[in-house]
Amino acid sequence: MKTANTIKEVRETVKEWRKQGLSIGFVPTMGYLHEGHMSLIERAAKENDKVVVSVFVNPTQFGPNEDLDNYPRSLERDTEICEKSGANLVFFPEASEMYFEDKSTSVSVSGLTTLLCGAKRPGHFDGVCLVVSKFFNIVTPDRAYFGEKDAQQLAVIKRFVRDLNFDIEIVGCPIVRECDGLAKSSRNAYLSKEERKSALILSQSLNKAKEALSKGETSANKIKDIIINSLSTEPLAKMDYVEVVDSLSLSPVENINAPILVAIAVYIGKTRLIDNFTY
Amino acid sequence: MKTANTIKEVRETVKEWRKQGLSIGFVPTMGYLHEGHMSLIERAAKENDKVVVSVFVNPTQFGPNEDLDNYPRSLERDTEICEKSGANLVFFPEASEMYFEDKSTSVSVSGLTTLLCGAKRPGHFDGVCLVVSKFFNIVTPDRAYFGEKDAQQLAVIKRFVRDLNFDIEIVGCPIVRECDGLAKSSRNAYLSKEERKSALILSQSLNKAKEALSKGETSANKIKDIIINSLSTEPLAKMDYVEVVDSLSLSPVENINAPILVAIAVYIGKTRLIDNFTY
Repeated sequence: MKTANTIKEVRETVKEWRKQGLSIGFVPTMGYLHEGHMSLIERAAKENDKVVVSVFVNPTQFGPNEDLDNYPRSLERDTEICEKSGANLVFFPEASEMYFEDKSTSVSVSGLTTLLCGAKRPGHFDGVCLVVSKFFNIVTPDRAYFGEKDAQQLAVIKRFVRDLNFDIEIVGCPIVRECDGLAKSSRNAYLSKEERKSALILSQSLNKAKEALSKGETSANKIKDIIINSLSTEPLAKMDYVEVVDSLSLSPVENINAPILVAIAVYIGKTRLIDNFTY
Repeated sequence: MKTANTIKEVRETVKEWRKQGLSIGFVPTMGYLHEGHMSLIERAAKENDKVVVSVFVNPTQFGPNEDLDNYPRSLERDTEICEKSGANLVFFPEASEMYFEDKSTSVSVSGLTTLLCGAKRPGHFDGVCLVVSKFFNIVTPDRAYFGEKDAQQLAVIKRFVRDLNFDIEIVGCPIVRECDGLAKSSRNAYLSKEERKSALILSQSLNKAKEALSKGETSANKIKDIIINSLSTEPLAKMDYVEVVDSLSLSPVENINAPILVAIAVYIGKTRLIDNFTY
């Protein structure tokens, strides 16, 4: 497995592969890799001749009061995990390699970004669209792999790829969970032992909603109430949002008669966690 | 020479060329081709194995009161000119092929777009950035050719190509003029005989400014005054803007001590014409 710090190195490697007619899968990450990322890399390795992983804590997708500086980092461990999972090239750029000081271009998706995390993290998805567009132009993959845990991110990326005619297949991959149900996340590293236990309330509340849906519940408000009531039983949990939206347009739903996304964001202490399912 | 109406056809042709290891030049146009476009296509043919020309009157770069519906069109003649100039593929998409009804992605360049045409045509450069990004992802050229007549457009495209890491060389090509000095433009077709004569005032006023610069004038205001005074001698001409800006940042200049762009926009009757030079 190769590693690269510069755009030039990545381009050279990718062009060599292209000359040989090889297909390329791409997994963009912010590092501190866990089994969720591993599942993306492994799938990319199955479906492509070569796999590129980027590890970049992207400053443009963090708000001024968010956890950019404290975001967990672990380059050596990340490199090992990439190699073990089947990556052929890991790209670790510095911020100065990715952004000019006088950068002045933005890539924005409207509509899809007004609700859910978009409402709570202004500018977040602009930062995601910008960095992912850049990586797509640097890596020029055939397929790119994203976790369904970041459901809104996945929908936003699919939308700009369609609108800007990127010739890249966007592959969404299922949420990977701990044995007890907590969705894997790099931010789980922030949780104290007690908070780790409380964090179970996210998946538990979603399971209750799923059960109600399977029994025929069609009112989005009732589904939300089930989740909100469940969350309120956990003293360390503070709801950020609970939403039931159309799975494609991400617009709010009242009566459930088409595919939906049920998505929640919850503070456990100071750590903001998200979880979701589609139905 | 091939013609194509669909993105799929273009991708298939380009992929075939790529397999053969051929380089690709690209000339995006709004059609009604003239010698200015021909010079771009000919240069692209010299510098690349294959040349793609797009002919698309892009609705997203026209304002609500601009000349979208009346913009001159001439598909048959354009096809002939492309073939004669050395194009290998001409792409004539319908608007419905290029844009989804629920399109929701924007590509914007800030800073460079606040002055000059950007100030007079709000949203214009967003439309340009969007359509050019799309064409770049469809055609995936090695080099793309743009006229220096649209100096701000060229600067904006260079900027977003840099910021989004498109692996495409942007080549600016000199303004092509009529024998009497009028810059070639599809919009010249709007001019009556009398207006055609009046339109000469654009290049004439710029020549006066050039002369003053070559004699050592370093005050941007004096250069502007020379142009404004010259334009005012022509009764059919109505100044839209006269600007002296830094040639890279397009920000206003007071004392001329680095490369500048002198750019003007002038209404001749109802027709808005632009011209410029760098110094």
